[in-house]
Amino acid sequence: MPMQCMDDDLLKFDIPEIIYGPEALSGIGHCAARLGGEKIFLVTDPGIIAAGWVDRTIRNLKREQLDYVVYDNVVSNPRDFQVNQGVQLYHQKGCDVIIAVGGGSPIDTAKGIAVLATNYGKLEEFVGCNRVMHPIPPLICAPTTAGTGADVSQFAVVLDSRRKMKLCILSRAIMPDISIIDPTLLETKPEELIAATGMDTLTHAIEAYVSSLSWPMTDPHAIHAIELVHQHLVRATKTKDAAALEGMAVACLEAGMAFSNAILGAVHALAHPLGGLYDLHHGIVNSVMLPSVVRRNLSHETDKFARMARALGVETRGMHPTEAAQQVPAQIEALIDQLGLPRHLSQLGVSADDLPTMAAMAQEDICMLTNPCTYSIGDIEAMYRDVW
Amino acid sequence: MPMQCMDDDLLKFDIPEIIYGPEALSGIGHCAARLGGEKIFLVTDPGIIAAGWVDRTIRNLKREQLDYVVYDNVVSNPRDFQVNQGVQLYHQKGCDVIIAVGGGSPIDTAKGIAVLATNYGKLEEFVGCNRVMHPIPPLICAPTTAGTGADVSQFAVVLDSRRKMKLCILSRAIMPDISIIDPTLLETKPEELIAATGMDTLTHAIEAYVSSLSWPMTDPHAIHAIELVHQHLVRATKTKDAAALEGMAVACLEAGMAFSNAILGAVHALAHPLGGLYDLHHGIVNSVMLPSVVRRNLSHETDKFARMARALGVETRGMHPTEAAQQVPAQIEALIDQLGLPRHLSQLGVSADDLPTMAAMAQEDICMLTNPCTYSIGDIEAMYRDVW
Repeated sequence: MPMQCMDDDLLKFDIPEIIYGPEALSGIGHCAARLGGEKIFLVTDPGIIAAGWVDRTIRNLKREQLDYVVYDNVVSNPRDFQVNQGVQLYHQKGCDVIIAVGGGSPIDTAKGIAVLATNYGKLEEFVGCNRVMHPIPPLICAPTTAGTGADVSQFAVVLDSRRKMKLCILSRAIMPDISIIDPTLLETKPEELIAATGMDTLTHAIEAYVSSLSWPMTDPHAIHAIELVHQHLVRATKTKDAAALEGMAVACLEAGMAFSNAILGAVHALAHPLGGLYDLHHGIVNSVMLPSVVRRNLSHETDKFARMARALGVETRGMHPTEAAQQVPAQIEALIDQLGLPRHLSQLGVSADDLPTMAAMAQEDICMLTNPCTYSIGDIEAMYRDVW
Repeated sequence: MPMQCMDDDLLKFDIPEIIYGPEALSGIGHCAARLGGEKIFLVTDPGIIAAGWVDRTIRNLKREQLDYVVYDNVVSNPRDFQVNQGVQLYHQKGCDVIIAVGGGSPIDTAKGIAVLATNYGKLEEFVGCNRVMHPIPPLICAPTTAGTGADVSQFAVVLDSRRKMKLCILSRAIMPDISIIDPTLLETKPEELIAATGMDTLTHAIEAYVSSLSWPMTDPHAIHAIELVHQHLVRATKTKDAAALEGMAVACLEAGMAFSNAILGAVHALAHPLGGLYDLHHGIVNSVMLPSVVRRNLSHETDKFARMARALGVETRGMHPTEAAQQVPAQIEALIDQLGLPRHLSQLGVSADDLPTMAAMAQEDICMLTNPCTYSIGDIEAMYRDVW
């Protein structure tokens, strides 16, 4: 077992309490009250405010006679200084429960604020496994993008703005208490964001399914999430059909449950330097890297990739597992093309000169530890070049 | 949605933190300490003490400098007066965390004690859905039988010794905090108990899979638990092979996660009066009732029963779903025969004269609410007679 996170040979499975359904957001005030909240610190971003979800949340808090403070200085790839500013405000206003309404960025910002609220110090001190020693304040998440899984995970990723690198915190202590999954929140999401976060979900599910820490508690969720993405992502993107959005909400939830407990792999390890150096959307860089990494991982988990081919709609009956597994990268590429997403790093403005530096960073990334095989820096650079 | 438990159309999924693996029990002291424990109330039974698991637990508590009190006045179908005696001792000794080491009986006793420790009153006041209003003390379970699922459920069932009926408490508040699944604990379990609790697990999985509250979060666990029972139960019973015991430990866990969130059905509703009036083993009465109830439920969830047939080892390729579904009861009966368990109520000393009374009790049982269809008292009596 390669993870220094694991005490020994034990396997763990931990998720928040999940409340799911259209209109689930209307219970958020009640949830905050039963976690002992009196003054709520509400983390969100300007887009979510414009979409009306913050007003809706505030109405619910007021119904429960809860006081609140809104913090919306959050951008995509959230910055360390935004977390620092948030925690100052949290203490200054005497808040006691944190709510995040938004995509991965507000949720990760909220987690960063939660860590510093009770553990003090600087975010970089908590990078790595289980370095967060004190319980965080009660944390409720209402995700507005079916992608990140941050609402059910023990991960938080924040940008170190000075060093331009991602700080990856992985700690049991940062698991949210309650995740409120209301698929109607996805209706205000732009088409290209549905596509990009959907590919993030697919990457979570694929990496968790073949992770060296996968086990019977994570596998059923990982493979089911892959099936759901295959069934729903294109339609959710093109039509915002309610059933397709619900399918993606469940896919994101199950992928999140799987990867938070089985951890991830090389796609995320290679995506993090791209996000750090170029400030690119996490879902887009995962999507670009996915086929390249999967091609090299295939032979290390043939049976699982063969099962994955079926989940992605390949008729595998009568195929040898090796042959079935080999269909997976092309299926993923076809999906990316259907979604109209880029397939190459050069399309994203990435310079070939940076690939060696990024390869060195990726090799040290915590997500590399659970990839089904290990890669040299040369291998990693080659995976970048394959899709450059 | 028939459950008065549900606020509205929302679906919920809540489970404890799960720690799984051979030797997982050795972390129990650390878990109690991180939940804030200083004086542990340890609920168990004389058989578990004799098997050595309580000594092992105490060594772990001592290593963390934790004080403890052992309460072992627990029998199969645990009694209300045992819960009352336990909570008195809990308060008298000033305990702060509860640990249950044992099968369903010590775990349900511990849950009853936990409810009264912070909610006061009498157990019967908490019968029904979400009547437990105050959080219970931190609760850790280490199950020693792969059957009950009580370690991951929001159910507790205790016998009202005066009225000879089961008190069924179903409350979000009684979900344990941590479940420690150590499959080596199953090694000291007698063969007939492995068989009986294994059939309890199968019943949980089948009822959760077709429950009217089943959803994509519970279905993958329910169907996987059925597959695992099919693969491992006979071998676990006959040989106590380590891999088979691990398979049953995971099956029990997944079935527990499914039924705690999707709830159960008519098999449990019909089994509870049998347990109450005759003090019969819960796994045995579930096993006897299962084929009879499944036969009548079949047509209400044809596709799911067809999928179940495959999980139980039927080659369904080319079969119409109706035909596939119809194979399920006979598969279950064959499994019961292989395990050498009884198939008839008369073999258990049940008098035919009691069937109408039990049918009236079963119709009122909370588990009936999520069965895929409703039954008249006449139907229920007929289901009893089918296997009398």
